[in-house]
Amino acid sequence: MKVDGKHFRTIWLEGDGRSVGAIDQRRLPHEFVVARLTNCAEAADAIRSMLVRGAPLIGAAAAYGIALAMRDDPSDAGIDRAYKMLIATRPTAINLKWALEEMRAVLRPLDAPARADAAYARADEIAEEDVTINQGMARHGLPLIEAIAARKNPGEPVNVLTHCNAGWLATVDWGTATAPIYLAHDRGFNIHVWVDETRPRNQGASLTAWELGHHGVKHTVIPDNTGGHLMQHGMVDLVIVGTDRTAANGDVCNKIGTYLKALAAHDNGVPFYVALPSPTIDFSIADGRQVPIEQRSAAEVATMTGRAADGRIETVTIVPEGSPVANYAFDVTPARLVTGLITERGVLKADRAALSAAFPERIAAAAE
Amino acid sequence: MKVDGKHFRTIWLEGDGRSVGAIDQRRLPHEFVVARLTNCAEAADAIRSMLVRGAPLIGAAAAYGIALAMRDDPSDAGIDRAYKMLIATRPTAINLKWALEEMRAVLRPLDAPARADAAYARADEIAEEDVTINQGMARHGLPLIEAIAARKNPGEPVNVLTHCNAGWLATVDWGTATAPIYLAHDRGFNIHVWVDETRPRNQGASLTAWELGHHGVKHTVIPDNTGGHLMQHGMVDLVIVGTDRTAANGDVCNKIGTYLKALAAHDNGVPFYVALPSPTIDFSIADGRQVPIEQRSAAEVATMTGRAADGRIETVTIVPEGSPVANYAFDVTPARLVTGLITERGVLKADRAALSAAFPERIAAAAE
Repeated sequence: MKVDGKHFRTIWLEGDGRSVGAIDQRRLPHEFVVARLTNCAEAADAIRSMLVRGAPLIGAAAAYGIALAMRDDPSDAGIDRAYKMLIATRPTAINLKWALEEMRAVLRPLDAPARADAAYARADEIAEEDVTINQGMARHGLPLIEAIAARKNPGEPVNVLTHCNAGWLATVDWGTATAPIYLAHDRGFNIHVWVDETRPRNQGASLTAWELGHHGVKHTVIPDNTGGHLMQHGMVDLVIVGTDRTAANGDVCNKIGTYLKALAAHDNGVPFYVALPSPTIDFSIADGRQVPIEQRSAAEVATMTGRAADGRIETVTIVPEGSPVANYAFDVTPARLVTGLITERGVLKADRAALSAAFPERIAAAAE
Repeated sequence: MKVDGKHFRTIWLEGDGRSVGAIDQRRLPHEFVVARLTNCAEAADAIRSMLVRGAPLIGAAAAYGIALAMRDDPSDAGIDRAYKMLIATRPTAINLKWALEEMRAVLRPLDAPARADAAYARADEIAEEDVTINQGMARHGLPLIEAIAARKNPGEPVNVLTHCNAGWLATVDWGTATAPIYLAHDRGFNIHVWVDETRPRNQGASLTAWELGHHGVKHTVIPDNTGGHLMQHGMVDLVIVGTDRTAANGDVCNKIGTYLKALAAHDNGVPFYVALPSPTIDFSIADGRQVPIEQRSAAEVATMTGRAADGRIETVTIVPEGSPVANYAFDVTPARLVTGLITERGVLKADRAALSAAFPERIAAAAE
């Protein structure tokens, strides 16, 4: 997608054919800085420090990390060392493990001298596969927006509400929830996005607003408390969110607060869609109650980081000294509240039958 | 309620029998500072600058403002000048107008030399009346907590979720939503409060957490996104919120985000109560759709204020440059989602019949 009018991905092979460029997401939205990763340790550090974040992007970054390692040591021991270094960065991200196992499976059978080239080739493919999945969601989600646009008066935008950052910054390009939005915008539809701030990490206000703004998509940042009021007043036509993991029955685990928006959508007859890249379907989980919910650090709730009047990036404490905080990272939206799942193979009902029929190979993957 | 072990109200007559003390709420939760108001202009400035805030407290502060004015100029012109100065501070607060009209009605018939003493006496009464109303809600709300406590195992707390600050800081003492909580705590019940941060102004994180902590009530600050997840997992026994205005049919206008918590409570069978001091019942509004919703400044959403590492109070910008924001201050929770209204005359059903029967004099007030 576009940054200052120029096309960018979140990660790319640099012109030297060896080092890897990536947008430093820790500096957004206040500064746009590109990092250059030149070895496996730097790639691991980029994932750990959240220079790159978002499950699909983490997978691509890990694949490039293995490729960088193969330049320095293409031995079996070199593969194992790189795998271990990278898997330890964010132990719970599904795509990280998948990408590392995929790279290892490709490289092990090869002679050492052939491994570096093969690793770069497969890492490039993994990045391209992510883009292809997201473009598939864009294509299948577009008709939902087209249908609403057809009912609008001239000049009236289609209003989409989204939560957190399921945008191109979380992937290699296009994003998941944002993919149909970007395609609609690029095709000339009048579209406006309500961006939930998404406390406590503020990925909506800091990342989604930034990427929509740079690509030229109209948007408005709102506190997480606001979406219900907007839906009561007919100001939201459609909700599209991402998912971190979707259970076999269609229950959706996503950023904390998603469930509240699903309830409001249901109460007001607003369609609630989840953009679901197939790697996040987990047939080993029967329903959402079985998804373990990560609890993160108190500091994310107790503090806020932003730009001070003099331009410095500053972190301030907003909770009284001595007041405990709780920080549940995700919640589960029951399938009954989900209008449909936008996948790269079409829009599906949120139930086991539809998911199984569309992605039979994921059932096998879950059984492994 | 208590601050550092000592009993405080939010506003009081000082020992000199003339000047008025008040907690400077702009400095909370980071600093506890008491202000001394010595004339009407200082009282007006305290309301305007939100040194004091919360509808009931604003009413009491305005009454003391008139009393201070009567010391300096007890003439008819003096009454009118003080009224005009004070009414202009927060033009939408219902209690402000009510308190000023009440003071004017009491003072006008009196000879000028008698006005100052009468004004202090009536201002004291207005403050006491607020405390009495809140104690009434405490008394009628307590059995709701007692009933839940009776079902708990030893050592298990009653978990109450609240939104925004309907605490003693918004009133003269006790608060509205917090009144039954403080009474239960003082009677020795094991009670724990989930405190919604309440973006964008953070009155939950900065005021409710502070006052509960100082009074010794167990509590945990949570992002506004979290309450649904907690209710899904049986971690909330009861929701109690305040109200800015309640329509004749029981629809409740309260801080933005209240509606989302009411939906989650309804979806999970959690009782959802509104603490309703009778002055906020508005029989002139048939239902909540007719309540105008104030839109406030973008800066409240785009920035956050807190304490920097070096102790300075700093404001930081958290939204990308150029991204618009929206800031709706309130939303309306339909009466169908309200389990009951805790009033100073008992717990009522949220409907016109119950409100009319309990507060017939408010119907007359609305017709004025």
